[in-house]
Amino acid sequence: MSLDELRLQIDSIDQQLVELLVARSRVTAAIGAYKRERGLALYVPERESELLGARREQARAAGADPDLVEDVLRRVMRGSYASQETSLPAVGDVRTPVVIIGGRGAMGRLMASLFERAGYVVRVIDVDNLDELAAAVTDAGLVVVSVPIDRTAEAIAALPKLPPDCVLCDITSVKQIPLAAMLAAHAGPVVGLHPMFGPDVRSLVKQVIVVCPGRDAQRYDWLLRQLEAWGGLLREESPAAHDQAMQMIQAMRHFTTIAYGVFLSRQPADLEQLLRLSSPIYRLELAMVGRLFAQSPMLYTDIMLQAEHLPELISEYRHALDELLALVRSDDREGLIDRFRNVQGYFGELAPRLLAESAELLRKMHDAQGAKAG
Amino acid sequence: MSLDELRLQIDSIDQQLVELLVARSRVTAAIGAYKRERGLALYVPERESELLGARREQARAAGADPDLVEDVLRRVMRGSYASQETSLPAVGDVRTPVVIIGGRGAMGRLMASLFERAGYVVRVIDVDNLDELAAAVTDAGLVVVSVPIDRTAEAIAALPKLPPDCVLCDITSVKQIPLAAMLAAHAGPVVGLHPMFGPDVRSLVKQVIVVCPGRDAQRYDWLLRQLEAWGGLLREESPAAHDQAMQMIQAMRHFTTIAYGVFLSRQPADLEQLLRLSSPIYRLELAMVGRLFAQSPMLYTDIMLQAEHLPELISEYRHALDELLALVRSDDREGLIDRFRNVQGYFGELAPRLLAESAELLRKMHDAQGAKAG
Repeated sequence: MSLDELRLQIDSIDQQLVELLVARSRVTAAIGAYKRERGLALYVPERESELLGARREQARAAGADPDLVEDVLRRVMRGSYASQETSLPAVGDVRTPVVIIGGRGAMGRLMASLFERAGYVVRVIDVDNLDELAAAVTDAGLVVVSVPIDRTAEAIAALPKLPPDCVLCDITSVKQIPLAAMLAAHAGPVVGLHPMFGPDVRSLVKQVIVVCPGRDAQRYDWLLRQLEAWGGLLREESPAAHDQAMQMIQAMRHFTTIAYGVFLSRQPADLEQLLRLSSPIYRLELAMVGRLFAQSPMLYTDIMLQAEHLPELISEYRHALDELLALVRSDDREGLIDRFRNVQGYFGELAPRLLAESAELLRKMHDAQGAKAG
Repeated sequence: MSLDELRLQIDSIDQQLVELLVARSRVTAAIGAYKRERGLALYVPERESELLGARREQARAAGADPDLVEDVLRRVMRGSYASQETSLPAVGDVRTPVVIIGGRGAMGRLMASLFERAGYVVRVIDVDNLDELAAAVTDAGLVVVSVPIDRTAEAIAALPKLPPDCVLCDITSVKQIPLAAMLAAHAGPVVGLHPMFGPDVRSLVKQVIVVCPGRDAQRYDWLLRQLEAWGGLLREESPAAHDQAMQMIQAMRHFTTIAYGVFLSRQPADLEQLLRLSSPIYRLELAMVGRLFAQSPMLYTDIMLQAEHLPELISEYRHALDELLALVRSDDREGLIDRFRNVQGYFGELAPRLLAESAELLRKMHDAQGAKAG
């Protein structure tokens, strides 16, 4: 057969593939509607795992690559979660209003949209119009504080008396201070939340949300079940442990990345040339720096300034840097290898796991490279 | 219809999907064989772009998501490149032996495997058996120097006289010193290559290779066309510009990452807890650090020690760090925002592009998360 004939066969197979994907999306839309009516969770890990297992087995039996089949199905499932989410299941009483303070910020809009798509009555209060709060909360079932970190205390202090059963929560990226303020402001159920994602996510499915218990867990339980019904993965932590961990997870990473950006901007470095010479791994290195600077200077600055021990952590990082710099200056190959090996011991079997994970991710980044389709 | 009935429909569609993927892989295997026999390139960007364009159009017309269809097809195409590469097309004369010095290292093994799969006669010389070289090169068409950076000069100096038409190249991650050494050691065609990827890649398709011309470009042209036929993307640079760029792309990134690893290993930080609290973006941040420590301490140390201006670059990075630390210590919100904005200006429209790119990548990382299939 000629190359043209073989390519026609591929085209015909791909055409059938698209037809199947279209048919599949009709069925998942029906499943979405079914679940919504009954308040059932969209994301059911067991069903997902069962479905993938069966198709992997089929691929194996046919001599095909089970990983390829799993990757394809996972991508297809992401599409169906997204389409099912034009409306969302409701767990709580949708007639009891949800009040979102700071609902015009990016995260506030996301929260408002989630509750709206689930059919709740949502009232959005701008952080500059806190005087509207008193009227808004009289019959509220939930008040969400979603304002910039530096205005959280002010917004909480401005709260009028809430109905006794009303749940009060915040979504600030620090937890000790806002939680204490909320407990002082409201005698009813209180819980601190930290969504570990930005407003650019399209869905809550598989996103981590840290939960710091405040008061009356039974009475805010419906809110946690609501977030889980939308696909969120809840992780309970004490406020102190949360704030401690976030100094490492967020503040230090942001700080060193911003410092690297400042350094880079003062070099005679041509970013387009660096990208032209970069394979996926180095492109990703640069993307991890550049992506930060497409976001809010205020948000990142506030996360850093709220991290109590950041100056000490930076000093310790600086010590590590100076120690390695001295080794580089004195051309101490053995010393550098030695430090490297210590860290290898610290990461242990996690290092190869993270390498494998990122290698697979790079292959996906790679898929997307090359000639853009029209 | 009941949920069970709807799920049975999904299962039936997915079963047909797997059958189509199996049928497709048979056709691409036939295409691979056809191309191999004729020395045709495996990766043809125009065909890829045409194929994707047609299917995107079909998806759009059917009211489905064209991005979903493109993602699925790109993943499927990656699978077919990989399977087509059990044997590879040959551009040069496969009877003229290819000698790989250092062919037992990870990169050397990859190079040897590529030439072998294309049907070339491949001779592997261990860097500790350089006395075997004289016999191996008498009729060689290509000598590839693939030894650790710190032994490159030694290996090149040990070269016996090569046949006049024999191409001499290296794949070291610095280029000025090895290229000068190769030009001194051989009077025939010489070219410096820097593959911008590690030995864990499964294919050369879309991987960047920097090419630094040495001498007699016409006579090593077949080698470049060979790399392109395997899917490589060639980027020509002068050795000086290459080395300059790599100090930023590789040495500085590696250095700051290693310093961060050293810092982290001295903190009372529980890596498993950090991962448990991390959404994909923070998991990726940690993975970019951890992945390094699953690799060779010698390789990374040598890349750093060979970067001539690394100490000055580190000092400049340290200045940026100190400047920001002082702002954090004095709680100077405006100063921090100001520095952030400067870098935003430097990245310009590249920042949102890198954000969008990494957001899409995170969604893919996300697909793969959750319950593992059996």
